[in-house]
Amino acid sequence: MPSLDFWYEFASTYSYPAVMRIAPLAEDVGVTVNWRPFLLGPIFANHGWADSPFNLYPTKGRYMWRDLERICEAEDLPLTLPPVAFPQNGLKAARIARAGKEDGWTPDFTRAVFTANFVEKKCISMDHVLAEILEKLGLDAEAVMAESCTDLNKAHLRADTDEACRLGIFGAPSFTIGEELFWGNDRLEEALRWAVKRG
Amino acid sequence: MPSLDFWYEFASTYSYPAVMRIAPLAEDVGVTVNWRPFLLGPIFANHGWADSPFNLYPTKGRYMWRDLERICEAEDLPLTLPPVAFPQNGLKAARIARAGKEDGWTPDFTRAVFTANFVEKKCISMDHVLAEILEKLGLDAEAVMAESCTDLNKAHLRADTDEACRLGIFGAPSFTIGEELFWGNDRLEEALRWAVKRG
Repeated sequence: MPSLDFWYEFASTYSYPAVMRIAPLAEDVGVTVNWRPFLLGPIFANHGWADSPFNLYPTKGRYMWRDLERICEAEDLPLTLPPVAFPQNGLKAARIARAGKEDGWTPDFTRAVFTANFVEKKCISMDHVLAEILEKLGLDAEAVMAESCTDLNKAHLRADTDEACRLGIFGAPSFTIGEELFWGNDRLEEALRWAVKRG
Repeated sequence: MPSLDFWYEFASTYSYPAVMRIAPLAEDVGVTVNWRPFLLGPIFANHGWADSPFNLYPTKGRYMWRDLERICEAEDLPLTLPPVAFPQNGLKAARIARAGKEDGWTPDFTRAVFTANFVEKKCISMDHVLAEILEKLGLDAEAVMAESCTDLNKAHLRADTDEACRLGIFGAPSFTIGEELFWGNDRLEEALRWAVKRG
């Protein structure tokens, strides 16, 4: 069965529409999605950026917010601007999402965190926000959050971020099929077509 | 009749597919295109960049070349990589393109220069390359090139670049309908739909 790796970062604005759109689109064309939360921070640091480029380059930032608004309108996705902060610190959420891979709740958790950030104006770095999301998914929040902080799980997330770097990923969302890289929510459909063709 | 301003820079890689695609697509939906050559150099300088971000951030650059290759393949556009240099200096070409607006040969000249750069591996900052293109269009190359360097024409191009800046343009190609900005070859269709809707 054709498959695709879906790389996303919880702080990333354009990851939001991709996170909400990918599952049904992939199902329609029979592509298995491997959800790959990772961290953009270390990759941006390699570029000498200590902040999101959308903050470092305000003209680009203004455009991004307007573009995101148009995308969500066209896709019928709710969006409440501005979020409580941008970028939010997505480290804890990424660790939890990584911990959920084995049991398969990573996609549901991810969608809920992006909704908390971009619709419900919640602070996604706060433990109680993340715990509430886990509980709503029927999970033992305390146990999951403890597991997400084990050395093993942290090492998994670091290794995934290293892999993203090795694959030439420099932004989110990104999609890879083998070594073939597609960057941006607006490349999701093309990446799925590629996966089908190469599957 | 609905219309749209099409902002492009002769050094810009993603401007190539937009330049080649825009005329028939706009005609199909009844949108008049106002071709607006401008200079990205002064805008990049505001960001503190003395070179193309695709050179400053090589990972992003590698992705761009591969992405451009895929786009041209999908659109059946010829592409010969690498070009003789990247970015090429597009100042002379931009001045000539600006000078052609009154007589209406700007689109034909622009397509020929992009073809020279991205298909024929020519140096588009050289006078003889530009003169040859003008002659093939049946123009008096010497007269046009002299006119392109008048103070008035240079002031026109500077004013256009200032206008691009004021509109929040930070990259090429860009499309504007009034104050509404769309950035990137992959937003061309959306910009045309917007022009039709607001026309």
